[in-house]
Amino acid sequence: MPLRPRLTPAVADVRRAVRDTLAATAAERAQDPVAPSTADVLVALSGGPDSLALAAAVAFEAPRTAAGSTPLRAGAVVVDHGLQEGSAEVAERAAEQARALGLEPVLVRRVVVGSEGGPEGAARAARYAALEAAALETGALAILLAHTLDDQAETVLLGLARGSGPTSLQGMEPRAGLFARPLLGVRRETTHAFCADSGLDAWHDPQNRDPAFRRVRVRETVLPLLERELGPGIAEALVRTADQLREDSEALDHFAEEQAEELADHAEAGISLSVRGLEANPAALRQRLIRLAVEGEFGLTLSRRQTLDVARLVTDWHGQGPVSLPGVTVVRRGGVLHFEAAATLATD
Amino acid sequence: MPLRPRLTPAVADVRRAVRDTLAATAAERAQDPVAPSTADVLVALSGGPDSLALAAAVAFEAPRTAAGSTPLRAGAVVVDHGLQEGSAEVAERAAEQARALGLEPVLVRRVVVGSEGGPEGAARAARYAALEAAALETGALAILLAHTLDDQAETVLLGLARGSGPTSLQGMEPRAGLFARPLLGVRRETTHAFCADSGLDAWHDPQNRDPAFRRVRVRETVLPLLERELGPGIAEALVRTADQLREDSEALDHFAEEQAEELADHAEAGISLSVRGLEANPAALRQRLIRLAVEGEFGLTLSRRQTLDVARLVTDWHGQGPVSLPGVTVVRRGGVLHFEAAATLATD
Repeated sequence: MPLRPRLTPAVADVRRAVRDTLAATAAERAQDPVAPSTADVLVALSGGPDSLALAAAVAFEAPRTAAGSTPLRAGAVVVDHGLQEGSAEVAERAAEQARALGLEPVLVRRVVVGSEGGPEGAARAARYAALEAAALETGALAILLAHTLDDQAETVLLGLARGSGPTSLQGMEPRAGLFARPLLGVRRETTHAFCADSGLDAWHDPQNRDPAFRRVRVRETVLPLLERELGPGIAEALVRTADQLREDSEALDHFAEEQAEELADHAEAGISLSVRGLEANPAALRQRLIRLAVEGEFGLTLSRRQTLDVARLVTDWHGQGPVSLPGVTVVRRGGVLHFEAAATLATD
Repeated sequence: MPLRPRLTPAVADVRRAVRDTLAATAAERAQDPVAPSTADVLVALSGGPDSLALAAAVAFEAPRTAAGSTPLRAGAVVVDHGLQEGSAEVAERAAEQARALGLEPVLVRRVVVGSEGGPEGAARAARYAALEAAALETGALAILLAHTLDDQAETVLLGLARGSGPTSLQGMEPRAGLFARPLLGVRRETTHAFCADSGLDAWHDPQNRDPAFRRVRVRETVLPLLERELGPGIAEALVRTADQLREDSEALDHFAEEQAEELADHAEAGISLSVRGLEANPAALRQRLIRLAVEGEFGLTLSRRQTLDVARLVTDWHGQGPVSLPGVTVVRRGGVLHFEAAATLATD
């Protein structure tokens, strides 16, 4: 591995992509310089081309990013899921690559993957828990994930197939809690070129080619066909759409939360919403207000169909009786929708 | 053609789908019963299976729908685009089928298709103009279009490929001006089954199989692959998503219009928006306010990139100069964003 990789377009692109995230973390660190820590950021490294390129770019940029009077310190954490033969060796090799790049500390964490949420979901849950524990341990302020624009496009398409509406279409957030995704605007071909240009020998996870996974089928079959039939740029188009949807949804959530306080009345049992208030709002907000009330009061998430059933007590009122949903009953009386735990009514 | 088609599930489904639209039109007619007219609704008929099923269902349901003291009167209009050999015969045959179904009047209109907007766009523009003229001529209150759930899913996918964000994803509206689309919740296989069950011999447009059209490729290649790789129900999922996006977007447009009046100041030349007001709003609303101002004042539509360039005068303010866009220049001064026609500044 050459210590001074060639500055090719791919190398420049990935380095540029990490700078904002590193600068934001450095600014955060500078505000609390005496907090005990051994790293400011941690790269989540699998050893695959995306995370290896991210690790190399961060290793290059972090020492050039000032966090107050000292440079930013970047480490790495490698999670060994213990699911494939030789996974410990893969993890150890990735850790060695991270050390050779100059990242410090480099943690390897072996996790036990359960079964809840399916094989992919369980591995994901175990991985994120281990990453958060590593951040706690090192005092790092951010964990950098190597998801690329292609990953984002795949996520959006998978969400589209679920059809759970705008929420499922939104894709991964650039920043969510400790986790940051600086490469969401970078194509996968760029991270691969980065590795080639830098002489970095990435690990290629055989699971990334296994068509048993829907995500693999999206990557290998669906997106290439969409590009061929609908013209190039479909991945970028999906991501652009996801960006705007995330903004739209955030704005509506913001207004719903503002209104919820005005419209809601926490009755002795359950919660009430003013019918007049619900009526005065456009459908998208009315439905969010109904969902917010049920979620806040009963911890339940309504489906679109259930939400529309409740909304009809406002939009299509003809004196009908209560709407009974699993766990909650909604009845209109005296100018309000009243939400009660279903058990309360059942035992009355 | 049997006069009394069998009442199969497909026939029942399509008939049920048209009832709400017919009832709404009947209610509208009942409010103004003396307006001169020869029909209350017109079915836009190509002779293909979707519009033939629609025509048959409307012919059955209209006489059973009361418009005040009389039943609803349904006619049809067939547009001959004159683009394919024998198109006049196809149109005449469709018109005969409409008459046999009991629709009255049945108009055949030959249009001249220009070239603006590409072959599909030009044909579409000519068709819609002829349909609107037919409504004017007959005094009809609604023109029924036979777009199905599958057409809607195709539209959503095509919009997705354009990547112009939520707007392009929204799909066709169930009602837009005179045009109503009562079959947007009905699968194409149902309209085809309707024709088979009713002994209706539909015309199959060879252009609907021509892979030179992107829409045909989406229908014949893309959607079937998505169903295969991502599971069945993808068409319904796309349409559900489109429905919610339409609601979300309408809600945000509603709030943007409300706020625009408060925030905007129509200066002598151009329009100003309060920076404080723009700052206080979430990104999706801020961007809509900027677009509304430019559209209302200059009749120009900003792209997402242009809108974000303007928004940075609020979100990333560091004393920068004006943002120059084609036709409009935006400058921040004294607590407002000031929008001026680009020419005004250029000739100063």
